[in-house]
Amino acid sequence: MTEDSSETLIPKVSTARRLDGTKVASEIRESLRSRIDRFTQTVGRPPTLGILLVGHDPGSEIYVRNKIKSGEALGMATDLCRLDDTASIDDALSIVHTFNRSDRHDAILVQSPLPDRMGRDAEQQVFDAIDPTKDVDGFNPGNVGRLVQKRSSLAPCTPSGVIELLDRSEIEIGGARAVVIGRSDIVGKPMAMLLLHRNATVTICHSRTVHLSEVAASADILVAALGRAAFVTRDFIKPGATVVDVGMNRLNDQAQVEALFGRGSKKMAAFEKRGSVVTGDVHPEVEFVAGALTPVPGGVGPLTIAMLMSNTVGAAEARLARGEP
Amino acid sequence: MTEDSSETLIPKVSTARRLDGTKVASEIRESLRSRIDRFTQTVGRPPTLGILLVGHDPGSEIYVRNKIKSGEALGMATDLCRLDDTASIDDALSIVHTFNRSDRHDAILVQSPLPDRMGRDAEQQVFDAIDPTKDVDGFNPGNVGRLVQKRSSLAPCTPSGVIELLDRSEIEIGGARAVVIGRSDIVGKPMAMLLLHRNATVTICHSRTVHLSEVAASADILVAALGRAAFVTRDFIKPGATVVDVGMNRLNDQAQVEALFGRGSKKMAAFEKRGSVVTGDVHPEVEFVAGALTPVPGGVGPLTIAMLMSNTVGAAEARLARGEP
Repeated sequence: MTEDSSETLIPKVSTARRLDGTKVASEIRESLRSRIDRFTQTVGRPPTLGILLVGHDPGSEIYVRNKIKSGEALGMATDLCRLDDTASIDDALSIVHTFNRSDRHDAILVQSPLPDRMGRDAEQQVFDAIDPTKDVDGFNPGNVGRLVQKRSSLAPCTPSGVIELLDRSEIEIGGARAVVIGRSDIVGKPMAMLLLHRNATVTICHSRTVHLSEVAASADILVAALGRAAFVTRDFIKPGATVVDVGMNRLNDQAQVEALFGRGSKKMAAFEKRGSVVTGDVHPEVEFVAGALTPVPGGVGPLTIAMLMSNTVGAAEARLARGEP
Repeated sequence: MTEDSSETLIPKVSTARRLDGTKVASEIRESLRSRIDRFTQTVGRPPTLGILLVGHDPGSEIYVRNKIKSGEALGMATDLCRLDDTASIDDALSIVHTFNRSDRHDAILVQSPLPDRMGRDAEQQVFDAIDPTKDVDGFNPGNVGRLVQKRSSLAPCTPSGVIELLDRSEIEIGGARAVVIGRSDIVGKPMAMLLLHRNATVTICHSRTVHLSEVAASADILVAALGRAAFVTRDFIKPGATVVDVGMNRLNDQAQVEALFGRGSKKMAAFEKRGSVVTGDVHPEVEFVAGALTPVPGGVGPLTIAMLMSNTVGAAEARLARGEP
C-alpha cells in the first residue's frame, strides 16, 4: 500500500508558536489596575465608559456583556444605554451628545453594527459626533487623522492589540515585511498605519488584489482581516512567518467543520456540543508552515477588549490631566 | 576594439512614454474656468484663497508666487498675508483664525515650511487650526481621517494630482501593484490611501525598508517621494512599469550633474547657464526600462498647483452650497 502523496507533502507537526492572546490580554489588564486605583482615589469615582447599544444583534449582546464584565473586573464603571431597534439616528445622536457633555463619562463606545434601518451612513454620523477625547474606538475622523500623523492616543482597539501582542511576544516589527489582507476602517487601514509607524514595510491587500497568495507569501508578518473562514491557506505563508488571524467566523455546517479540522478534532467536539464553532480567516493547515500564529478564539479577540480598557483609562487620565473630570 | 560590455547591457533608446504634467495641469485648469465664472456670477466675487507666508524661504517665495499667478490667470482671487521671520506661532494662528472667520475667504493655505524658531510642532498646530472646510492642502487631521475613510473632498494636492495624471494618461490603477517610496504626511501616506481607494495593491516603503530595490521592482506603478536625487535606479524598476517622480532636488555640483546626465545633455546646458538644475528622485537611466515616466520638472509639479486651484474652487462651491459665502 502506497502512502497518499498529497498527505506526505504536508508535515503534520505544528511548527507554529502559539501567540496566546488571552495571556497577553490578562497582562495588559493587570497593568491597568494601579492606574485605575490612582484615578479612582484622585477623582472619587472610577474611570467610566458610556456604552450605547441599539437593537438586539446577538453578537453585539455578547460583545457588550464582555466589555462590561471586563471593565467591572478591573474596578471601572460602565453605563449601558440601550435603545430599541426602532430608534432613529437622532435618538442615537442624542445619547452620544449626552455622553459628550457628561462629566462622569471619560469614554464613549457605540456598539457596531447599528440597525440597517438607520441608514447606510448612520455609523459614520454617530462616530463623527463622538467627542474625540472620549472616542475609545478611535473611529472619529480627527482621531483617524491623528493616527495617520503618528500622534494618536486613542488608536482602534483591534490593531493596537495586535501591536501589543507582537511586542510582548518579542516579534520584531521594524524592518519586517508586513502584509495586511483587508482594508476596513476598523482593522485593515489602522493596522497598516501602526505597522508602518513601527518601521515595517507594509502592503495592503484586498478583494481586488491580483495574485493574493503570492503577495501574502512575501510577508514576515501576515495579518488576515478579511472575514472569510479559513481563506488563508498554506500557500499564502512564507515558512516561519508570523500569522495574525483577526477573523471571527461562525461555522454552522458540520461538513465544513469536519473538512477543515478533521473528525475527532477539538473543533469537531465543540461543534457536536454547540452546533457551531468560531474559526478565523486562517486555515488550520497554516500551523504546519507558520513560525508563530494567533489561535481563534484566544488570539486577537481578548486583546481587543483589553485595549478598550486601556483606551478608557488613557482617556480618563487625559481628562484628569486637563482638569476636566 | 571590443565594446564596453556594461554599456551594451543598457539599451540607449528610451522605452518610456513621457507623462506630460504640464499638459494635464493645463487641462485641469481649463476645466475649472466655467465653474469659476459661474461662482463669480452667483456670489459677486471670485473664489478666494487666503495665503499665509512666514519668513523669506527662497523656495517658498517661488511657490507662493506661482500659486498666486496661477489663481489670477483663472480669474480667482488670492490674498497674501506675509509675516516676518520674527513672528510667533500665535501671530500665525491669529491670521489663520481671521481667514477662518472671513466670509470672503473660501480656502486657506499656509506655506510650508514655517521658520524653525516657531518650534517643532508649529506646522501641525497651524494645520490643526485651519477650518477643515477651507483646508485646501488637506493637512487638518479631520481631513486626513476623512481621506482614509474615503469621503474626503479636500485631498492633499500632490497625491491627488498624481491620480489625475494617471487617469488622464489612461494608466490602469485598479488591480495594479503600486509601491510608494516615502511615508510623509504630505505625499507618501495620502498617496498610498488614494491608490488603495482606486483598488491598487499598495506597498509603502521608507528608509527602514530592507531590499528596497527588490520591493520597488514588484510595482506596476512606482511613486518615488523620498527626496533624494536620482536615488531610484534602473534596478528598482520592473520593465514597462509606470514611474511617478515626486522629487524636486536642486543640484549645485557640476560633477554630479555631468555624471547623471552626461556631457552635452540638456541638463548640463541648463546647469552651465544657471549654476544649478532641478532633478527628481528617479535616475535618468530609468527611462530605458520604464513604460511611462513623469519628467522633472514638468511632471508632478504643475499638477500640485492645478489641484490647489481645483480644491479652492471645490471649497468655494461647497461653501456656496451650504449658503455660507
